[in-house]
Amino acid sequence: MSRFWSDFVHQLVPYVPGEQPKLARLVKLNTNENPFGPSPKALAAIAAASGDLLRLYPDPDATTLKQAIAAYHGVARDQVFVGNGSDEVLAHLFHGFFRQDSSRQGSSRQGKPLLFPDITYSFYKVYCGLYQIEYRTVPLRDDFSINLADYSLNNGGIIFPNPNAPTGRPLPLTDIEALLQRNTDSLVVVDEAYVDFGGETAIALVDRYPNLLVTQTLSKSRSLAGLRIGFAVGQKPLIDGLERIKNSFNSYPLDRLAIAAGTAAFEDREWFEQCRDAIVASREALAAALVARGFEVLPSAANFLFARHPQHRGAQLAAGLRAEGVIVRHFPQPERIADFLRITIGTEAQHDALLSALDPLLANG
Amino acid sequence: MSRFWSDFVHQLVPYVPGEQPKLARLVKLNTNENPFGPSPKALAAIAAASGDLLRLYPDPDATTLKQAIAAYHGVARDQVFVGNGSDEVLAHLFHGFFRQDSSRQGSSRQGKPLLFPDITYSFYKVYCGLYQIEYRTVPLRDDFSINLADYSLNNGGIIFPNPNAPTGRPLPLTDIEALLQRNTDSLVVVDEAYVDFGGETAIALVDRYPNLLVTQTLSKSRSLAGLRIGFAVGQKPLIDGLERIKNSFNSYPLDRLAIAAGTAAFEDREWFEQCRDAIVASREALAAALVARGFEVLPSAANFLFARHPQHRGAQLAAGLRAEGVIVRHFPQPERIADFLRITIGTEAQHDALLSALDPLLANG
Repeated sequence: MSRFWSDFVHQLVPYVPGEQPKLARLVKLNTNENPFGPSPKALAAIAAASGDLLRLYPDPDATTLKQAIAAYHGVARDQVFVGNGSDEVLAHLFHGFFRQDSSRQGSSRQGKPLLFPDITYSFYKVYCGLYQIEYRTVPLRDDFSINLADYSLNNGGIIFPNPNAPTGRPLPLTDIEALLQRNTDSLVVVDEAYVDFGGETAIALVDRYPNLLVTQTLSKSRSLAGLRIGFAVGQKPLIDGLERIKNSFNSYPLDRLAIAAGTAAFEDREWFEQCRDAIVASREALAAALVARGFEVLPSAANFLFARHPQHRGAQLAAGLRAEGVIVRHFPQPERIADFLRITIGTEAQHDALLSALDPLLANG
Repeated sequence: MSRFWSDFVHQLVPYVPGEQPKLARLVKLNTNENPFGPSPKALAAIAAASGDLLRLYPDPDATTLKQAIAAYHGVARDQVFVGNGSDEVLAHLFHGFFRQDSSRQGSSRQGKPLLFPDITYSFYKVYCGLYQIEYRTVPLRDDFSINLADYSLNNGGIIFPNPNAPTGRPLPLTDIEALLQRNTDSLVVVDEAYVDFGGETAIALVDRYPNLLVTQTLSKSRSLAGLRIGFAVGQKPLIDGLERIKNSFNSYPLDRLAIAAGTAAFEDREWFEQCRDAIVASREALAAALVARGFEVLPSAANFLFARHPQHRGAQLAAGLRAEGVIVRHFPQPERIADFLRITIGTEAQHDALLSALDPLLANG
């Protein structure tokens, strides 16, 4: 604490990322990383871009990366914004689009809260603290699904992940389109960090809805968490707004190696599809194994499962697994999800280790 | 423009970085990059860190990099903050320390402007726009030096580069210490992007002044502009404030390869010193060659020269050089510096090309 902090800094409650343990030989199923490495073409692109040219600044527009993303998704290059992980993209859009304008009376956003689910990506609240944005959370249904019909309140914006985190539950595109048709006066952001594992992307709707912005990341389905690349797709005026913020913050948030690797990863469709298909198959097998052990497993379209056991407390299972070197994520708050474990889909060997560690814990119930 | 932008986005005037031309074979002396490549140990560290592990998130605390910087500068690890280039570090400190708290009456910062030189790094004004910070600029002396005695106004913070950009003129540490002794109620930030080429770092003063924060970058003297690594050194409460902002913005702004390369670059003191010494020698030779051609060259402690010719307009010289494939930076505004060229120190061959292109332009005066 320091008297040189601006007032709002005292109130900040920073985001706490999943643990990155430094011990080797742990079975790490806690931060939704991909069990497979990045595309060999991405690694080759890093090797080619590394060398004396690192003395030069990167392309501030990350042109090749935007081109590769635009080509993959069938949009124009100026409909793509890229950033240092989808977290940086989200931070800029909270700042640029969701910040109420307290100085201006009668501003259209004044006093209208941003809406997001009560159980969702916990960074949203943190951004609201950082940019002093009023928000209201909307409860999930009892089955932990998002009901977009509940988002009809007069609002200053709406954001939700699809599939939602940490539940993994997907929303059909028809529900999202219905929301966009009802809610034309504020921005709707669909955070698709996990969409490649079985969800339907709303990028298909971007050309018809000027108030839709879709964010994705290369951290999960393209195995590049270590390089921090995220992006947003929307109509040009929204992308222009993000570019204004980015160019007033940091001209080059993506370095030369990240741009090279991200471009190559997007161009290597085959590697991407192979890894994704393996993860989806692995997810279904793990879900079945957990159900066979008495777990309730929420339907997941992500690269993780959200599961609870009627006879065991989530905190105890997480601690018991950790003692055996298996790390899963457990959220003590809110109460409604305190008995769930969020388990990243790993390799077959990692799942075997998980189940072997789990069985004695369940037997000791 | 979009009705979904927050009000302040309409008023933003983003920073314009120096041109990154895509043409090969240009003599690029416009963005103060290092003519020598990064340390071979940094390149080896990239090769070692590239591979399947890129599927995992980086260390959110960039521990090895902070350790290497702390060891080099003789400070504790918790006195070091790292970010995606010193631009990101600056953005966070403007937000966290210079933002006035408009909502709170009687806040100590209320209505007191941030002070910085009228001719300086042009990103400072942009950050003020981004975070809605009031500022006042303080004119340089007629010889383009900063007079810190002019910064005695009641203020909400002070920031200046040392050496200043784009002039290259350094300030003695005694002047900075005198300022810190006069100005104890607000934060003083010394932006040392270019300090390694002949300035004196204020990091030596950090332990005695709780209101001092020093920023540096690996882009210039460590030849890593392409990887985007910057840092700040100060007493722990200031670093804690920056960590709160960073952890409320993006948990992992530095990727695995940047952390590995930055750590190795800081550990390779020999490579750093060799390149720095070569650049300093090269700067003095180029300054002499320009003076011999009638230029007025400001005394520089940076890796660039700021020079004007009494018989030639800066815009015409810059355009004439560009036509010959030599790019230097020219700032049409403010008027006082419109006849200067900012010339990055390059290799001997680049200087020869510059002088060969310059001579006919001067002869045609």
